[in-house]
Amino acid sequence: VPKLSGNLLIGQSGGPTPVINASLAGVLSEAKKMPEIEKIYGMKNGIEGALKKEVYDLTQEPGDLVEKLLYTPASALGSCRHKLTKAEEYEQLLDLFKANNIRYFVYIGGNDSMDTCHKISKLAQEENYDMQVVGVPKTIDNDLPITDHCPGFGSAARFVALSTVESGRDLEAMKTFDDVAIFEIMGRHAGWLTAASALGKRCEEDAPHLIYLPERTFDEEQFLKDVKAVYDKLGYVYVALSEGVRDKDGEFIGAKDAATDAFGHKAISLSDGPAAYLAKLIKDKLGIKARVNRPGTIQRAMSSLASKSDVEEAFRAGQAAIQYFTQGLTDVMVTLDRIAGEEYKIEIGKAPLEKVANVENFMPDHFINEAGNFVTKEFYDYCLPLIGEPIPEYARLVGKPIKLK
Amino acid sequence: VPKLSGNLLIGQSGGPTPVINASLAGVLSEAKKMPEIEKIYGMKNGIEGALKKEVYDLTQEPGDLVEKLLYTPASALGSCRHKLTKAEEYEQLLDLFKANNIRYFVYIGGNDSMDTCHKISKLAQEENYDMQVVGVPKTIDNDLPITDHCPGFGSAARFVALSTVESGRDLEAMKTFDDVAIFEIMGRHAGWLTAASALGKRCEEDAPHLIYLPERTFDEEQFLKDVKAVYDKLGYVYVALSEGVRDKDGEFIGAKDAATDAFGHKAISLSDGPAAYLAKLIKDKLGIKARVNRPGTIQRAMSSLASKSDVEEAFRAGQAAIQYFTQGLTDVMVTLDRIAGEEYKIEIGKAPLEKVANVENFMPDHFINEAGNFVTKEFYDYCLPLIGEPIPEYARLVGKPIKLK
Repeated sequence: VPKLSGNLLIGQSGGPTPVINASLAGVLSEAKKMPEIEKIYGMKNGIEGALKKEVYDLTQEPGDLVEKLLYTPASALGSCRHKLTKAEEYEQLLDLFKANNIRYFVYIGGNDSMDTCHKISKLAQEENYDMQVVGVPKTIDNDLPITDHCPGFGSAARFVALSTVESGRDLEAMKTFDDVAIFEIMGRHAGWLTAASALGKRCEEDAPHLIYLPERTFDEEQFLKDVKAVYDKLGYVYVALSEGVRDKDGEFIGAKDAATDAFGHKAISLSDGPAAYLAKLIKDKLGIKARVNRPGTIQRAMSSLASKSDVEEAFRAGQAAIQYFTQGLTDVMVTLDRIAGEEYKIEIGKAPLEKVANVENFMPDHFINEAGNFVTKEFYDYCLPLIGEPIPEYARLVGKPIKLK
Repeated sequence: VPKLSGNLLIGQSGGPTPVINASLAGVLSEAKKMPEIEKIYGMKNGIEGALKKEVYDLTQEPGDLVEKLLYTPASALGSCRHKLTKAEEYEQLLDLFKANNIRYFVYIGGNDSMDTCHKISKLAQEENYDMQVVGVPKTIDNDLPITDHCPGFGSAARFVALSTVESGRDLEAMKTFDDVAIFEIMGRHAGWLTAASALGKRCEEDAPHLIYLPERTFDEEQFLKDVKAVYDKLGYVYVALSEGVRDKDGEFIGAKDAATDAFGHKAISLSDGPAAYLAKLIKDKLGIKARVNRPGTIQRAMSSLASKSDVEEAFRAGQAAIQYFTQGLTDVMVTLDRIAGEEYKIEIGKAPLEKVANVENFMPDHFINEAGNFVTKEFYDYCLPLIGEPIPEYARLVGKPIKLK
């Protein structure tokens, strides 16, 4: 199939991940090999840049950019949270594509961004403008459907797994002084990242002891019972808590005053999150101290702790976008498909954009225990390969304490 | 000098660090070579364990313990925050030492723990009980005097430096949506760890933009002016804020209801810290959004990001404690002395315990800029060698945005 010669427009959107730049690197390295692509333009702050006609000419950047992007956190092009709604915005975009001979469009992002991507693809088709559109998945939330998992999740999961088990050892060491630690973890609707807190746990003493996910209704009474039971047994309790836990009425726990973002999501991670609220509840009702660990954006930014397999898959997903152009494909998102078998292996696949736009993929029931306060062995099997190198086996004394004279 | 044959009692105390176990490893590996040491007892939860006569017999642990301790976070023996005050506690301890032939005592800890260590040393001397006492420094706060720096600081500083610059890239990428991020960093009285947030910054755009230390009086009006000035210039502001900032009356910012610990310190890092308070202030007064990153105990626990030089120095400090026993020394703390010269080099030294007990070492004036909201080049020179491998040079686009047609 002969391809049109023209320019590539690429953007990054939504909350950054440690490897969204690795996907950009994959796109860039592959786009340079595709003869039909002339200029590579990077939208400044995603679709907002396209609306303002502000782009970076990536064809002009130094040759070491691709290599550096592999370990650079956040979005090198800048990101945004902009929902396309107005008719004049579509017109503006179509004008931009036409005026600048944009024939290839890549958008790296999550659910909302895949919606943007799909709308642009539809726009081009409806207006008979010949432009191929491919989405590259990206989200620490791991909530895109069809793909086995999302680039970005494995690295954030690695940070959460390591920081939980390591700060859990801190709490355990301080148990004569501290009582409870609550780690508030990102994930507005899906609990994947919170669930990943379990991955470093090797024994009962290791953190976390309790995990609360948005997939289950949060009940304050039951929570206090759970905390008390662990406390009575171990003398300390480490709780992994999703920022998105909600009560039976669907209200976010402790987030009555939260602001709302452009997509109508409540921004619950400003100063009042559920962890601070529950720490107070524990103090009031159980009379024990609770600390809050809330790394906030640190958990989605730490490329220093990126999962090696995540970096590699993010890069491959970026390359695939360009390969799909050469195959004549459009209106698809790149997927990571897991090949059944003993050894972890991924094959690059694809899904129609309309099937992923705005669809959220929650944790399935068999990944959550019956009590709704921990994960299952099946979740470990699913998730462990995604975080790269195994979590170290830290020292733990073998002998029990003895009584001196 | 012929030494007494007897048993070694060792404890870890105060807030854990990523390398306090590396010091324990150093003590253990060296103690095994000292013929006079028979049994090695590890106090369960520091001096509290000694008071309860609860110890681990470390002589019985498997041979790979030392190696594993080198990368194990927190305190393998358990820690405590117990201040020796009562006369009967001293009696109990003396009885314990005598009944169990404890002739060697090592305590790994910070200011408060060196006070405990010194009191025990004095007790033995006053009661004519022949026991050598050595303190091994440990604190992420880096606030012990005489020593160039404290084991534990370099690793926590590495985490803070990396997480600041990496989550700073996140904020920068999201600047069309987010405005301000406040990273609340540990250090009740000394600003060393907060200052380390600067170490990954290579240009104006990189985080942090403002640093507030307990060494300077915090003024809310000036803070708002500082934030606004950076915001007007860059469109986003990353603030590194010590949890210990105080106003002109000496009151912790936003911590009116805070609880008090056994040493009389206000425990300001529970649910209400200064960052949450200031985020609200920014929203109210400047009308812009502020996020809070507060990793809490994660910042002092992450052995996964430990500084290699810190691990090595912590190990050497532990070894030195035993070497000082063979040299007939007592009532001293091990110090790390920096040797002047181009290349970073450390020599192991010592300081009398009475000169370090309860003494806090604050940041000197020449490490803080005139405005009191950033660090100086001299601080970089002092601190960069302590965090081990250099912070990566992340990608940053060279070209300026262009305007498409």
